Amino acid sequence: MALNLKPLGSRLVVEPIEQEDVTASGIVLPETAKEKPQKGKVLSAGPGDRDDAGKRIPLDVKVGDTVLFAKYSGTEIKMDQKKMLILKESDVLAIVEG
Amino acid sequence: MALNLKPLGSRLVVEPIEQEDVTASGIVLPETAKEKPQKGKVLSAGPGDRDDAGKRIPLDVKVGDTVLFAKYSGTEIKMDQKKMLILKESDVLAIVEG
Amino acid sequence: MALNLKPLGSRLVVEPIEQEDVTASGIVLPETAKEKPQKGKVLSAGPGDRDDAGKRIPLDVKVGDTVLFAKYSGTEIKMDQKKMLILKESDVLAIVEG
Amino acid sequence: MALNLKPLGSRLVVEPIEQEDVTASGIVLPETAKEKPQKGKVLSAGPGDRDDAGKRIPLDVKVGDTVLFAKYSGTEIKMDQKKMLILKESDVLAIVEG
Amino acid sequence: MALNLKPLGSRLVVEPIEQEDVTASGIVLPETAKEKPQKGKVLSAGPGDRDDAGKRIPLDVKVGDTVLFAKYSGTEIKMDQKKMLILKESDVLAIVEG
Amino acid sequence: MALNLKPLGSRLVVEPIEQEDVTASGIVLPETAKEKPQKGKVLSAGPGDRDDAGKRIPLDVKVGDTVLFAKYSGTEIKMDQKKMLILKESDVLAIVEG
Amino acid sequence: MALNLKPLGSRLVVEPIEQEDVTASGIVLPETAKEKPQKGKVLSAGPGDRDDAGKRIPLDVKVGDTVLFAKYSGTEIKMDQKKMLILKESDVLAIVEG
Repeated sequence: MALNLKPLGSRLVVEPIEQEDVTASGIVLPETAKEKPQKGKVLSAGPGDRDDAGKRIPLDVKVGDTVLFAKYSGTEIKMDQKKMLILKESDVLAIVEG
Repeated sequence: MALNLKPLGSRLVVEPIEQEDVTASGIVLPETAKEKPQKGKVLSAGPGDRDDAGKRIPLDVKVGDTVLFAKYSGTEIKMDQKKMLILKESDVLAIVEG
Repeated sequence: MALNLKPLGSRLVVEPIEQEDVTASGIVLPETAKEKPQKGKVLSAGPGDRDDAGKRIPLDVKVGDTVLFAKYSGTEIKMDQKKMLILKESDVLAIVEG
Repeated sequence: MALNLKPLGSRLVVEPIEQEDVTASGIVLPETAKEKPQKGKVLSAGPGDRDDAGKRIPLDVKVGDTVLFAKYSGTEIKMDQKKMLILKESDVLAIVEG
Repeated sequence: MALNLKPLGSRLVVEPIEQEDVTASGIVLPETAKEKPQKGKVLSAGPGDRDDAGKRIPLDVKVGDTVLFAKYSGTEIKMDQKKMLILKESDVLAIVEG
Repeated sequence: MALNLKPLGSRLVVEPIEQEDVTASGIVLPETAKEKPQKGKVLSAGPGDRDDAGKRIPLDVKVGDTVLFAKYSGTEIKMDQKKMLILKESDVLAIVEG
Repeated sequence: MALNLKPLGSRLVVEPIEQEDVTASGIVLPETAKEKPQKGKVLSAGPGDRDDAGKRIPLDVKVGDTVLFAKYSGTEIKMDQKKMLILKESDVLAIVEG
């Protein structure tokens, strides 16, 4: 099913990527020990904010990028029974490459 | 009856769309479990804020759009016995398309 | 008696319009159930704020307009035994038309 | 005796005008029921703040004007046993005319 | 002994002038009833802040001026066993003339 | 293994350098007496923030630099079982040379 | 040993100068009665912040200056067993001359 959200300004629709439940030592962590997701995939991106002259500032993040963002950034929404986040690009810390 | 509110600046008059009371699994949620509406229909839109040179910045949201906005944004008003919200466009997270 | 207040900048002198005491179902609400007025008539308007170049930014609201404003905006004053408000235009949410 | 205070920037020296102690119904209010003065006479006015280009922005308020200002604005000083206020022009809500 | 403090930006070195301990009615006030000084003499003045183009904005206050400033403004320092204040010019309310 | 984080704007990926556990007097401090790291190595650097005209402002910090930063700055992330920080360049106090 | 810290922007590395422990009356104060240092010597200075056009704003403080700064400004660091501070130039109140 196609995504039908068009974010405004410099906002992004991001689908959080759950961290793996198994640690390096192979121990399965109980639910409460998991932090809220900090990694996500960009599903949709706004046209960018306008600068003082009214021109759009292009976003550095593109649809399909995997991004890191601080915990508790943005607004949680529910689409098709899945939790998604609407973040501002300024909440994105880094793009995870390769 | 025609809407007789002309919002100022980048404000929007939005009629909240109540979420469906029935979940995917078919269980009817009691009233208290429902969150405040986050989706709404734009009934009226202001002319846009002025930039530093005094020119209007056009809005990205148009009358008729369905929008997502963060809970508790804006000011609640009552018109013709219906609850409506006056939001700033910056409170709008995304336009719901299709 | 003529109004003798000349508001500064983008300020407006607004006379609140009390909401009707009778609800749709015909029940008279006791005093405490009434919210503070949110509607008012513009009695006087300032010349507008100055922009960075010192030029006045004209107001969108005119004397005689009926306006909606958020509860608790502005400063309450008493003139001729009547309560009035001095608001900034930015506190005005919308103009009520027709 | 001449006033010997030269306010800086957009500041004004204002002498508060005490509200009349007698209400419309002729009852003399005890001291504690009186609000702090909100009306005052401008005794002295600064040269105006400088804009970004270093030019003075002329004040809208002139010496001799009667002004309304929000309660608790400004700084109270004592000159010749009289209480006076130093306000910024932005604390002035309106000029009382006529 | 010469003052050896060169304040930066729009800062001033001000020596507070203690209010007279004797009130108009001739009663000597005990120490605790005295407010912190609000009047002072300017001993030294900075070169002024820079504007956006890097040019100095000249100060309105000159060395030797007697100034009024809000209680608790600035930073108290001790020089040669005397309390002095380093204020920003924006903390100065007015120049006391004559 | 190559670092696969591309920080946005003026952000830096910094690997904290643990302070030595042995003090000058040769006493090994227990874990709790150690402060959080304040020194780190820059592993990756963003392209710089954009100025008002949309042009990138080049960073002063380069990949490979050892930097000092205030305790508790930035956001802690875990990569390959190692703690790293994403800082803004403005959180960097100084570059440690030589 | 040479100082190997290169502060960024308008930051300064300052070595606090301890106040004399002997008061004017010759009494040695116990440690707790001493205030945190407010005087210091500038050991290193940054290149200055950039203005809106990207040009460096030169610092008014030079290496070797003795400066006064408000208590509790800046960030304390330890270098070679000595406490030092990294301050922003805006935290410097005045240069102590002569």
